[in-house]
Amino acid sequence: MKRTLIKDIAAHEGKEIMLSGWVHRIRDLGGVTFVILRDRSGRCQVVTNDEVELNQESVVQAYGKVAPNEKAPGGYELALDRFEILGAAEPELPFPVNGDPAKVGIELILDQRMISLRNPKILSIFRLQAALVKYFGEYLRSNDFTEIKSSKMIGTGTEGGTSVFEVEYFDRKVFLAQSPQFYKQAMVSSGLERVFEIGHAYRAEKHETSRHINEYVSLDVEMGFIESEMDIIELERGLLTYIFDKVNENNKADMEVWGATCPTGEQMKKAPVITHDEAKKIIREKLERRVFEISPEGERVLSAWAEEEHGTPLVFINEFPRRKRPFYTYPKGTKTMSFDLVFRGLEITTGGRRINEYDMLRETLPRFGMTEEQLGGYADIFKYGCPPHGGFAIGLERLTQKILGLGNIKECSLFPRDRKRVMP
Amino acid sequence: MKRTLIKDIAAHEGKEIMLSGWVHRIRDLGGVTFVILRDRSGRCQVVTNDEVELNQESVVQAYGKVAPNEKAPGGYELALDRFEILGAAEPELPFPVNGDPAKVGIELILDQRMISLRNPKILSIFRLQAALVKYFGEYLRSNDFTEIKSSKMIGTGTEGGTSVFEVEYFDRKVFLAQSPQFYKQAMVSSGLERVFEIGHAYRAEKHETSRHINEYVSLDVEMGFIESEMDIIELERGLLTYIFDKVNENNKADMEVWGATCPTGEQMKKAPVITHDEAKKIIREKLERRVFEISPEGERVLSAWAEEEHGTPLVFINEFPRRKRPFYTYPKGTKTMSFDLVFRGLEITTGGRRINEYDMLRETLPRFGMTEEQLGGYADIFKYGCPPHGGFAIGLERLTQKILGLGNIKECSLFPRDRKRVMP
Repeated sequence: MKRTLIKDIAAHEGKEIMLSGWVHRIRDLGGVTFVILRDRSGRCQVVTNDEVELNQESVVQAYGKVAPNEKAPGGYELALDRFEILGAAEPELPFPVNGDPAKVGIELILDQRMISLRNPKILSIFRLQAALVKYFGEYLRSNDFTEIKSSKMIGTGTEGGTSVFEVEYFDRKVFLAQSPQFYKQAMVSSGLERVFEIGHAYRAEKHETSRHINEYVSLDVEMGFIESEMDIIELERGLLTYIFDKVNENNKADMEVWGATCPTGEQMKKAPVITHDEAKKIIREKLERRVFEISPEGERVLSAWAEEEHGTPLVFINEFPRRKRPFYTYPKGTKTMSFDLVFRGLEITTGGRRINEYDMLRETLPRFGMTEEQLGGYADIFKYGCPPHGGFAIGLERLTQKILGLGNIKECSLFPRDRKRVMP
Repeated sequence: MKRTLIKDIAAHEGKEIMLSGWVHRIRDLGGVTFVILRDRSGRCQVVTNDEVELNQESVVQAYGKVAPNEKAPGGYELALDRFEILGAAEPELPFPVNGDPAKVGIELILDQRMISLRNPKILSIFRLQAALVKYFGEYLRSNDFTEIKSSKMIGTGTEGGTSVFEVEYFDRKVFLAQSPQFYKQAMVSSGLERVFEIGHAYRAEKHETSRHINEYVSLDVEMGFIESEMDIIELERGLLTYIFDKVNENNKADMEVWGATCPTGEQMKKAPVITHDEAKKIIREKLERRVFEISPEGERVLSAWAEEEHGTPLVFINEFPRRKRPFYTYPKGTKTMSFDLVFRGLEITTGGRRINEYDMLRETLPRFGMTEEQLGGYADIFKYGCPPHGGFAIGLERLTQKILGLGNIKECSLFPRDRKRVMP
């Protein structure tokens, strides 16, 4: 018998069907037993007068007849004929799959990741995340961007300040890429002009915070023939307007289990652009103390300000000082053509225009204590003709976290890696 | 003035426009100069009576009037008013960007990767590759598969026989994942049931062949509630039918520069499924010698046989012997429920049903000299209820190579990594 998905049972009223899924919950009321079955499409009540010898989370096929029942979730239930076991579960679960994850700590959630991901509330995080990846690609492809896949093992470890992981590569050492920065610039200059990459990025930072992980998915974008970072800001504004509109249109269910609200596309359109100096002033006035840089606390102040003044939880900050940005950032006096995007108190994007002129690059490198040789073939991108260009990267886990309002970024990585965690 | 893309110039006949792009070629005929300009959309002839002081590959804006010219490629040219330089190129190029890459060796192509990618013929490989990734995701999403992003740094290095790269991870060692095998199985058992991943995979093998690279992009698929590897074969057949049809529909230009022909969807539908024993018999009869395993030469024989007998360059081989497959492969007597797909003489896929029963897994491990502890949390997937499932992976670079008929897989990786190459 062909399998029916739970979401489709109403169409089979009165008919014999077969459901397949996990035993989510068993309630034995003495004489009658209710089994909640879970498949990828939803949950369904299965009712039987027989004794049920099943463990929670066993995978079964349930044969029976679809019957209307006002009290059943969805209005229908399966009157059981018989179960067949496809994959038996041991009796004691290491994680409350059918419970509220808020009642267990994040450590248990991550230690028992293989099982905690079955919790429907936890799993909804990753259904939403998959949707974000899809919308990201859709918008960019429809704007003539080409997807690239660049190497994550690089021969030189000198992109910027952050520390890198070393890999034993045959008889030498290489490094895990902190970002596809150089490669996406190379692909703009290759003639693709507009590229994006969805890939892992690695930071060997010893952070232990709720906003850092050592391996994350970077949604990278780079575009040629721009004039300043404002073109890139408007590109990201358009992209996130599309993504937020799509989430509100298609992903309500995954939002609702977390009681979350996604910003509207309209709110993205309204996100103000303020300079780094203006941002510091806003923070200073709010916190009533001198401000030297934009701290996590400052980011929260800025989001509150944007909400109050502009009715949006998003704010772009541009014109970062030169010393706060990597060497490849395009200068503008003592400032740079660069920006951050802060969303609900967390920086989710860094971007800007990059240096595209070989002479300017050569002038800049010594100021950062660097040489052209250190950069491998990077300088070639500019030596042989490169358009003005820029781009940005969105941290996928941070974006997911902020849309759903979750407390810790690690909840938004399937198998997160931090200083202490490399398993499962 | 707003930029016009080269592909759109016909619509601007007689009008002043501005093109942006790379100086592809300069022909000075004394008194009149033709400059071929290249942008992401195509190439265009720019004509001027003035002297042109430009280097090849400089990035310029060209202002002028669109004029019909039967002799110009596309039927239109730009009568130049003036050039403005956006990114100047040095005079001596390290790679013949406007030449035939067949005339230079693969070593120069890869050594000068930053510039060789500008060669339109070489760049077309990666436009096609981006399309393959797009079609792969489209087909799977429309069949209710969810995209996942799993960690590439794993705490245990014991998935199978292949050697792994070690990473210095703070005060311990971890390994680069050879595949997302365990994670995609975990996500089937999480309740997503149907998942795919597009991500890097790492093999520390000391091969130096035209079919191996040490870092590649793996197109991974895993699906629950199957009966045997035949369900997975039919899934891949449907997927590749879709991909090949789409390539033939949309990517003719990138195929033509290589003189390549993509199989039709019909040919994919006709791909036969033969057992490992049958395959060996076919190879034995053709080569007239005893055959113990399916070598690269054998794969070429099988493709020739499929072409001759079934009119298709694709052939599935199933029922591999148990000793040739990893421990997690579902057994079928002394054989397994597993398969390879050979395409134009090259294996591009390995797949099959996996063991989903905890007892069977525990029985199997010692036969492969393994313990449950070695596997980190892997056994938990099965201990707590897992549906029958299976999947496969397609090597993106191999698929690209075989569609375009290229000699070396390294041509199909933007920044390939082999024993000696980690730059650029």
